[in-house]
Parts: sequence; structure tokens; C-alpha cells
Amino acid sequence: MEKKTLNIVKVGGNVINDSIQLDEFLKSFAMIKGPKILVHGGGKLATKLANDLNIPVQIVEGRRITNAENLSIITMVYAGEINKNIVAKLQNLDCNALGFSGADGNTIVANKREDTKIDFGFVGDIKKVNTQLIEVLLNQNIVPCFCAITHDKKGQLLNTNADTIASELAIALSKLFNVNLFYCFEKGGVLSNTENEKSIIEKLNYQAYFNFKSNGVIKDGMIPKLDNCFHALQNGVASIHIGNLKMISSSSNKHTILTYDY
Amino acid sequence: MEKKTLNIVKVGGNVINDSIQLDEFLKSFAMIKGPKILVHGGGKLATKLANDLNIPVQIVEGRRITNAENLSIITMVYAGEINKNIVAKLQNLDCNALGFSGADGNTIVANKREDTKIDFGFVGDIKKVNTQLIEVLLNQNIVPCFCAITHDKKGQLLNTNADTIASELAIALSKLFNVNLFYCFEKGGVLSNTENEKSIIEKLNYQAYFNFKSNGVIKDGMIPKLDNCFHALQNGVASIHIGNLKMISSSSNKHTILTYDY
Repeated sequence: MEKKTLNIVKVGGNVINDSIQLDEFLKSFAMIKGPKILVHGGGKLATKLANDLNIPVQIVEGRRITNAENLSIITMVYAGEINKNIVAKLQNLDCNALGFSGADGNTIVANKREDTKIDFGFVGDIKKVNTQLIEVLLNQNIVPCFCAITHDKKGQLLNTNADTIASELAIALSKLFNVNLFYCFEKGGVLSNTENEKSIIEKLNYQAYFNFKSNGVIKDGMIPKLDNCFHALQNGVASIHIGNLKMISSSSNKHTILTYDY
Repeated sequence: MEKKTLNIVKVGGNVINDSIQLDEFLKSFAMIKGPKILVHGGGKLATKLANDLNIPVQIVEGRRITNAENLSIITMVYAGEINKNIVAKLQNLDCNALGFSGADGNTIVANKREDTKIDFGFVGDIKKVNTQLIEVLLNQNIVPCFCAITHDKKGQLLNTNADTIASELAIALSKLFNVNLFYCFEKGGVLSNTENEKSIIEKLNYQAYFNFKSNGVIKDGMIPKLDNCFHALQNGVASIHIGNLKMISSSSNKHTILTYDY
């Protein structure tokens, strides 16, 4: 039997920070037909709350050092404020959303990161995605909405990168569905010139990515993002799309499409 | 076909405030066999966070006046911090918990309270419980864990009394299950003398409750709680138990059992 198509959309923090953009994004997301999953980042709200509470925030190599106080803030903001408001807004759009952390239904189990150089605190690297419940829910027209929190199955919540949650969900669900993965952020796609917003690389395969990395065209935060993507394409994900929220409502809108081979 | 038994347990804020009591409660809850649902209150954490953020908290007639800032705090604390930690702790106890607000899966729809005398703000009175998804999940051995937040299906989250969430879930699910409802709090049961913790009324029917109210033995916050209970018993709930967390692990432990008639 042919696999059904499943669309997984990850929306970044900068879209979430802007309520007009967020509403526009959610409208487009709600209109996607068939089984779908939303994964959302955190945005600036966690840092703002930490500042308001005089709790220091430390970011190393783009990752938040997550001590107990910061984990509590992240849990409140990601799983509480952001997730529940997204779910309520999607319900208004007749999209039957159901909020998830990885602890909920034991859907995403992670290991606390053991780094010999840096103690990242309560940060998790994904060990296993349990797809059975997610499949049951998708078949009931439920739309799972994941925030960037997992657990270790021993009672500990863990802060986990939202891009990775999206790609690991996509890989695990590729066994059951034909998965398209969308990374929706503030830019039009992967740029060949970061100074020029219009320099969108429309098609990017692994060889071209390797070359762009070597000559420094693609750099910084885009590298772990794209490594993640090519890892997902190598592991069964059908297609990956990177672009702004317009790509969700119109697939013909210019954005970056990743493929593993030519 | 005979209905399966469903146990719904509401745990109050004072148990949640004390991590040792909470762990003990969750251990007992995890051991309950068969389909079950947890409903949890908020505890002092929301008030503490409001204080830390210098946001005024106003309680009128035992109800929190919920302006936008306080709704945000409640959403962070109830649906984020408390709910996700309870879910992670239950997962560690091999209880497949899944956190819910009423917005999740559109399970509990409420109307914003319109009170001519007091503006309670974003406070919801329950209009409808949608049981279909809950039934699917219970059949998958999932344990729904509800926090005290609902929505209006128009994108607005609403602060809703946890006792009422428990009783309305119990009433709605009584059509599908034989429902026992447990209100677990810091006292051993309904007391005939509030000065004496041992004066537990073991059996209370509606007539006796009416008499206890008339002569002032039962008063204050216990009245809306018990009104709620008798409303649930009138509407199909099989039994209601009020007591401390020991009643969960041992049904023979002394506590108050409510019945509608003699």
C-alpha cells in the first residue's frame, strides 16, 4: 500500500516573536491538507522572562546552558505560554491541535548531554521517537504540536533543539508516511550571499552543500541546520524545504529545496 | 455490555506544593489499575511567580481575577511547569501520561464568565466536554493529565476551576464508563469539626449535606466543592471520594464517600 503524505512544519523563534507573523503562519499551517505536525521553537520570551526574574542566561555555541532555573523557565514558556496559545489559535482555525512535549505519551526520549568540555546542563540529545501514539492521533485527524522539550524517561525534562526534534520526528515517521519537512523561518531560504535576501539557493544537494561550506558561502548557524537536514534526507525523509512562511501557503513560492543526490 | 471502570483523580494545590507529598501521590496514582485520568490544581507557584514579577494578584470569593498578565502566568505555571513535571514523573513510574489543557484536542470548551457584579477576566465556565479523543486515548492505555485551563474555541485560553474540570469530565465520561471520582487534598475528608482533623464524615448523602449546611457544620470553601460533587452524582457519576492521598493507595483508608441517596 502506498504511504500517505505527512507534512511536518518547524516554525522558528523569530516568527513566534511577532504576533502578526505568527497568526499569518498559523492560518497557512491550518490550511495544509492531510496529516501534519507542527514543531515550534522558543523565541525571545524565555530570555525576557529570565531577565525579568534576574536569572542569568548563558548561551554557548548557540546553545542555552540549561541549569534548573533556566529549565523551569523554558518549560513554562515553551510548553506553557507558547504551546498552549498556538494550540488555542489553531483550534479557532478548526485545526484539531494537541500540544506535546517529548514526555507526553513518552513520544521523544533523550539522553542528557554529556560533554567533556562544556556542561550544558539539562540539555537532551534524542535517543528514540515512539511513533505508535502519534500515528493513532494522526489517523484521528489530530495535529500534534511539539515544543522543544523532551525527557529521559527517568522523570527529568530536557531542553532539546527544535530543529532536531523536527528532523528526528520526520525520520522516525518516514517508516509510516511519505514525509515532507518544512523549516519555516524569517528568510526566503538558504542564501548564497547573506547580504542579499534575494540570493536564495533554490536547489541544494549534498555535493553543492559541501562545496558551499568549503568556500565559506554557507557558514555559522546554517551549518548545523543543514547537517541536520541532510542527515534526515539520508534516513528516509522524502523532501526538505527551507523558506519563509509564504512557502507553506504556496509551494510555488521561491525557497530552498534540499535533495540528497542530483 | 457492562461499562469499564474509569477512575478520575483530582489532586489539590497543597499536595502539589510539597514535592515529597506530590511524589508519594504520583506513586499511588501510577499504581491504580485500568483507565484513569489525573486533574491537577495550581498551587502557590503561580502566586509566587506573579510576586517575583511584581504582577498584582487579586482573589475575590476564592477565585483569581484573571487579567491577561495573570492568564499568562497561570498558563506558564499550570500547563508548563506543573503539568510537564507531573507527566515526566509519571513516565518514570511507567504510567503513560499525556498532558492536556482543555484547548488540546478541543477536549473542554468553556464560555468566558460574564458576571454583572465582578469582572473575573479570563475565567471560563465549562460548556462542553468532548469525550471522543479521551476515549481513544484511554483505550490506548494513555493517562490524560489535565491542568486547570480551558478555551473558548475562538483562540482564547481561560482559567477554569480544577474541581469543576474533574466533575465535568466525570459527568461526560459517565456515558461511556463507570466513573469513580476522587478529590485528593491535604485533609482526611469532609470534617464535622474543622478543629478536629479526625472528625471525618465517612458517609455523606444529599440530605445529610443539606442538614450540615443549614446548621453551619459544613461551610466556606467546602460548599462549592460539595455542590459540585452532588451535581456530578446527580448526573451519572458512580461514586465520589474525598480524602488525603492515602485513600488512593488503600480504599479502606478512612475518608468521605458521597452518595446522592441513602
